[in-house]
Amino acid sequence: ACPPLTGSGLEGVFVLRSLEEGRALRRFLVENGEHSERGEHKPRRALVLGGGYVGVEMAETFRRLGLEVKMVIRSGKVLRAALDDDVRALVEEEFARQGVEVVKGKPTAFEGGRRVEAVVFGDEDRHYPCDVALLAIGVRPEVSLARAAGVALGATGAIATDSHMRTNLPHVYAAGDCAETFHLVAGEPAYIPLGSTANKQGRVAGTNSAGGEATFGGVVGTMVVRAFDLAVACTGLTAAQAQALGYTVRAPMIKAMDGAHYFPGAAPIHVKLVVDEETGRLLGGQIAGRRGVAKRIDVLATALHHRLTVADLQRLDLSYAPPFAPVWDPILVAANVAAR
Amino acid sequence: ACPPLTGSGLEGVFVLRSLEEGRALRRFLVENGEHSERGEHKPRRALVLGGGYVGVEMAETFRRLGLEVKMVIRSGKVLRAALDDDVRALVEEEFARQGVEVVKGKPTAFEGGRRVEAVVFGDEDRHYPCDVALLAIGVRPEVSLARAAGVALGATGAIATDSHMRTNLPHVYAAGDCAETFHLVAGEPAYIPLGSTANKQGRVAGTNSAGGEATFGGVVGTMVVRAFDLAVACTGLTAAQAQALGYTVRAPMIKAMDGAHYFPGAAPIHVKLVVDEETGRLLGGQIAGRRGVAKRIDVLATALHHRLTVADLQRLDLSYAPPFAPVWDPILVAANVAAR
Repeated sequence: ACPPLTGSGLEGVFVLRSLEEGRALRRFLVENGEHSERGEHKPRRALVLGGGYVGVEMAETFRRLGLEVKMVIRSGKVLRAALDDDVRALVEEEFARQGVEVVKGKPTAFEGGRRVEAVVFGDEDRHYPCDVALLAIGVRPEVSLARAAGVALGATGAIATDSHMRTNLPHVYAAGDCAETFHLVAGEPAYIPLGSTANKQGRVAGTNSAGGEATFGGVVGTMVVRAFDLAVACTGLTAAQAQALGYTVRAPMIKAMDGAHYFPGAAPIHVKLVVDEETGRLLGGQIAGRRGVAKRIDVLATALHHRLTVADLQRLDLSYAPPFAPVWDPILVAANVAAR
Repeated sequence: ACPPLTGSGLEGVFVLRSLEEGRALRRFLVENGEHSERGEHKPRRALVLGGGYVGVEMAETFRRLGLEVKMVIRSGKVLRAALDDDVRALVEEEFARQGVEVVKGKPTAFEGGRRVEAVVFGDEDRHYPCDVALLAIGVRPEVSLARAAGVALGATGAIATDSHMRTNLPHVYAAGDCAETFHLVAGEPAYIPLGSTANKQGRVAGTNSAGGEATFGGVVGTMVVRAFDLAVACTGLTAAQAQALGYTVRAPMIKAMDGAHYFPGAAPIHVKLVVDEETGRLLGGQIAGRRGVAKRIDVLATALHHRLTVADLQRLDLSYAPPFAPVWDPILVAANVAAR
């Protein structure tokens, strides 16, 4: 059965409240995609409202199912918080290549009878017809129960906890999409509701509430998302975020091959490192490419956890074999360039 | 043109003296594989002597080109130095599945007229017919020039250098397959002739010999090789090597999925961690699977460079998205198991 999505009252309109809900819908569509061919109402045009991870994944899924897809984002920027503009341009290029149109706009109304027929963008008087509209316009923590019980919230609006996942109330723990996490690079609490973090926090809360002893080590803001043939990943701070926090940064983006250039299947990969100009410390990284993106970002995530410098990165003994990496892994190429 | 391989005097017999030479031959075969179809002599049976990286890659290449392949190894163990027996079993399984027979044996003679017809394993009086025999039985450093010039060798037989890649002679540097490297986990010089290391050493030797200042940071013994659909990688010490160095180790191997279990293409992946029982420090890792192996080992390599413990590994904010990793990345699953 289709996962329980928050209905808007209008058929064809879906609201996703979390990344996991998006993935549940995606899973449903992947597994049941063919059924829609035989269904009574086969949607033809999809409108995805919101350009975050969920929006990107759902735009891909709708397109693969054969729908025309338009993505409408308030800022006009896909993955606004995760990527700098140079890396974002690669995602937008892939979207264009795959026929997904990305436009800027803020929805003001739905049109239709029993079923959605269009979304209106009032401020500019635009009107986009659609058979399916998906709202993936951000996530807010569900804290009504916590608030009613006297549990303190943090500045992000999510539940504040210590490293044991304890709230301000004795014997009350919080973990997952309702709780804050601690961003080790930004050095402050953050609200980043991801399943990987929720699971780690849950393990800590569970261990402690059952009489054990565990602490949660915080996050570095790692994420990866697939946009058609392109995987795009980030960790730590973008150049823009680092600058906003007062850092002067070097942030070159390099293009290399993801395997030996002569090996069948080798494809370009882009790596951007964000480096503190003063200390050489790595502050963040972004990678976009066809292969080996998700686990390459993990090398940078590991580096961020342990405050490595770009000189440390240059020395890493990373794996090399023609099908998987060139003799200088793209991460090393990026480190060599960023170290200059 | 085919790369210059050391001939044995007998047609059809090739001797590979380095991993890079093997990769050059592999590249030649990949790019020119179809020509052999039209050639006068189309080999049908290949014998690969030696079970190291080169042997594994060449066995795969010959098999993909349609030859019958038998691999004969002195120890009988594929990738003997790189893998513990439990991980090796996965490689042997894949070889068996792909029709590559692995046997133990030490070649004593070639048979044939102008062209090789068989290899003889004298001690057991075996006789394996073949049209192509490939010797990939190990690499020794070429140090004759260095020795003649008075350059000192290390205990490994390769040229000894300091971290600037300086030899004992003023203004003489050594780098690459003729030189030792320093194994950061074993804490001693080692001879590991890999292209990735050679390139890093060459950069350091070049910088210093041209008046700059650079040091080489050593290696952690990272390698990856593809054996048909299986990628297998290692870094640091195997459990056997760690025990030989006096460590008491925990070394569990876990099996997980390399993506969300429901996502198309998800496949099993095995991760083995070697952990110092006393301190919890990671000493090594081995990974075998279909996807995301090469760059997952790099997370462990990074951990080894900075002496992380298994508790540090458990905290890593590794990337998660259904196509690329389950919510608990296999590395985290392995760390959770090894931490118990």
